[in-house]
Amino acid sequence: MNIKAIAHILGIVLRFEGLFMLIPLAVSAYYADGLWRSFAIPIFICILAGFILGFYAEKESVFYAKEGFIIVAVSWIILSAMGALPFWMSGYIHSYVDALFETISGFTTTGASILNNVQALPRSLLFWRSITHWIGGMGVLVFIMAVLPMTGGYNMHLMRAESPGPNVGKLVPKARETAIILYAIYVVITLFEFLFLYIGGMPLFDAVTTSFATAGTGGFGILNDSMASYSGFLQNTVAVFMVIFGVNFNIYYLIITHKTAAVLKSEEVKAYILIIFTSTMAIAANIYTLYGNIKDALQYSFFQVASIITTTGFSTADFNKWPVFSQTILVILMFIGACASSTGGGIKVARILIYLKLIKKELRSFVHPNSVRAIKLDGRSVSKETSAATGAFLMLYAFVFFVSVLVISLDNFDFTTNFTAVAATINNIGPGLCEVGPASNFSGFSDLSKFVLMFDMLAGRLELFPLLVLFAPRSWKR
Amino acid sequence: MNIKAIAHILGIVLRFEGLFMLIPLAVSAYYADGLWRSFAIPIFICILAGFILGFYAEKESVFYAKEGFIIVAVSWIILSAMGALPFWMSGYIHSYVDALFETISGFTTTGASILNNVQALPRSLLFWRSITHWIGGMGVLVFIMAVLPMTGGYNMHLMRAESPGPNVGKLVPKARETAIILYAIYVVITLFEFLFLYIGGMPLFDAVTTSFATAGTGGFGILNDSMASYSGFLQNTVAVFMVIFGVNFNIYYLIITHKTAAVLKSEEVKAYILIIFTSTMAIAANIYTLYGNIKDALQYSFFQVASIITTTGFSTADFNKWPVFSQTILVILMFIGACASSTGGGIKVARILIYLKLIKKELRSFVHPNSVRAIKLDGRSVSKETSAATGAFLMLYAFVFFVSVLVISLDNFDFTTNFTAVAATINNIGPGLCEVGPASNFSGFSDLSKFVLMFDMLAGRLELFPLLVLFAPRSWKR
Repeated sequence: MNIKAIAHILGIVLRFEGLFMLIPLAVSAYYADGLWRSFAIPIFICILAGFILGFYAEKESVFYAKEGFIIVAVSWIILSAMGALPFWMSGYIHSYVDALFETISGFTTTGASILNNVQALPRSLLFWRSITHWIGGMGVLVFIMAVLPMTGGYNMHLMRAESPGPNVGKLVPKARETAIILYAIYVVITLFEFLFLYIGGMPLFDAVTTSFATAGTGGFGILNDSMASYSGFLQNTVAVFMVIFGVNFNIYYLIITHKTAAVLKSEEVKAYILIIFTSTMAIAANIYTLYGNIKDALQYSFFQVASIITTTGFSTADFNKWPVFSQTILVILMFIGACASSTGGGIKVARILIYLKLIKKELRSFVHPNSVRAIKLDGRSVSKETSAATGAFLMLYAFVFFVSVLVISLDNFDFTTNFTAVAATINNIGPGLCEVGPASNFSGFSDLSKFVLMFDMLAGRLELFPLLVLFAPRSWKR
Repeated sequence: MNIKAIAHILGIVLRFEGLFMLIPLAVSAYYADGLWRSFAIPIFICILAGFILGFYAEKESVFYAKEGFIIVAVSWIILSAMGALPFWMSGYIHSYVDALFETISGFTTTGASILNNVQALPRSLLFWRSITHWIGGMGVLVFIMAVLPMTGGYNMHLMRAESPGPNVGKLVPKARETAIILYAIYVVITLFEFLFLYIGGMPLFDAVTTSFATAGTGGFGILNDSMASYSGFLQNTVAVFMVIFGVNFNIYYLIITHKTAAVLKSEEVKAYILIIFTSTMAIAANIYTLYGNIKDALQYSFFQVASIITTTGFSTADFNKWPVFSQTILVILMFIGACASSTGGGIKVARILIYLKLIKKELRSFVHPNSVRAIKLDGRSVSKETSAATGAFLMLYAFVFFVSVLVISLDNFDFTTNFTAVAATINNIGPGLCEVGPASNFSGFSDLSKFVLMFDMLAGRLELFPLLVLFAPRSWKR
């Protein structure tokens, strides 16, 4: 285990977190809400600890996938532990466990909240909540990689560990340049959404925080009713941008570089759009009688479908009151999730496609026993290693899922609540059904359950294996 | 596609079904319940159709895994279609769809019922219901193989397609002899259970039908309260025999042939017993306050755990009223299921072990990038083909599962009902939670949902792929 490299990078992460917190500090100063200490102290701790850890000299060192996984896992945990301080020190969230839950929910872009009354929060805290979404969406280490030239061969390992998808590829030969391109696209689309919302009539503060929360596919709203009280135009704009942020970012790079032929060949994006379209239509038909007109039914349906499949978690309607067929579609979308290499969570459309292809391959092996065709995605062969890793992902996913449902069932909420609470956290969505529906929150759970759900949020965002590697005793041997 | 071979074997299956129905016909005659026509006419149809199909001469013919899968799938469908006739013709089940549901539930050893009042059924029909469990448990084609010398190289293909588990092995070099040994063990253990129950004070008729239903891990009771009104001794006897029938039958062969060393090495059986033990303890602790004494809590807990993990589905208590933690354990046990090569259903303990080993292997590949150790079960390497097929099984399982939950959600029952209804049918258990709890039944679903659940029962019993091969257009080309 390369402890020095881990400490060194962790130091950088902490210093960056201190810098990020300057933004809500400024907001606090601007609105003079008296919370500047709640930011200043954590900033001081972050930067001091960051510099101390920074003394570990970064040398030419052995750095493998294992170290990449562990750095990412540790970074996200420390990031959240520090990021929770302003909520807790301000007194707006009394329990540190709750503050940690809220912060992990922010960084992992889940958007599950323990707050009964979001609107009671001062703007500086609301701003910090939104910023955690934006940083978490594309990843903090990818960010650091983009702005800071780091020597050593670990860039690719870090990017692989932090970026979602079965097969994280580089857009360009160098990992650092890939990080820069990804963040550039991210910034530009976020800006576009902000402009659309602001020009469309949303207040400045709302437009900024909503853009951050959409970009990271996070879902923290700043109003108690999430997006329900905004105009139809604003709701539709948010819905469209949720879909945009759920697309594989490689696609945008292909568009920028005029490789439209490759764009049209992307099976993942085609499947993603097809799923959104059919789900929207099916739910609209199912809820039509509830709203009495096609336009409303379509608008509510599209918003919720976009919000859930991209794992954002905003809502314009309480789908807890929708027919069970519509709810079941939404639950299935929770698991499917967005595209790989987007800011969205879930299992990812690319993995679902690989699963379907592996099933087809297995079926073919019965019908044509001697055929040994490899499976392909977007015209390229999927390697045996990727297939095996994608399969193991599902097994681990199911395992973590059911163990989580079991542990939180000790709180004696109903099965649907527990099932969807885990689905909403491990897939980084936010709201589930029943007691954790869009009109409710996660405050009712015990601390034990909250820790389980925090683990699920982190496990989901980092795609399970980094956290497991961190906690596997074998990783720490020798 | 070798249509002739399929027709030939289907003919044999139908004639055997005709013979099997002679037993309830005799019961009908003995009790003079006036239902002899409801059995005689189906018997006549089965034997006539069987002989007509039998004209297809069985020749040296090409016979692959595909044909094995299709014969098994078609056999089970036709077997159920014919087996439903007595229920329907007798008038005791008005709708043919319901009769078919009840029969598929019988043959697949699910034990899910659409009957509100089982006790109203005449004994001949109750006997037929129990017989379907016993035949379905070990498999009708394995039975035919055991009693009828069949030429042609298809024995092994049929056995593989009909027997559960990730890796169906022969006990002895010849498939036919394996079938004989399996059925011999099956008959002997069934007899033992009957003797224990009969000597323990259970009425003769109850002892016979209960033994059949336990042996097949089916779960059709002949009383409305399932096993609740029998004595503690009888309940415990049934519980122990459920566990016995859920063990991999290879173990019994090893015991008979004095290979105890290999028995003690069986990871699957060890895991199976460990799961039963810990689940029983956890539930007993959780329901202790409900029953007020340790003995009752343990007895109820053990019975339900044994019933659910072996996918039998008998009940002595309405676990719908238990705390959600206990219910969640039972739901998880539904998915785990019994051992491979037992009469139980579910994913199977052996597959779960393979999944855990594949996860571990994947984790190891991050920590030690160059290690390429194969995974082992019971000291033997698991081939790459088996790993891939076991992985594809989980993917297909999840796919069929969620599509089923979605379609039956159109009936607008709650999510827990739909989820556990599919879990209880695809894993061949019987009761689920809420509207399909142990004190309720499946009569409330629409015909569409019933067809979905029938598909799930068959897909579960035949382990998904045979039905998929049957319905895949590719199978029928050329």
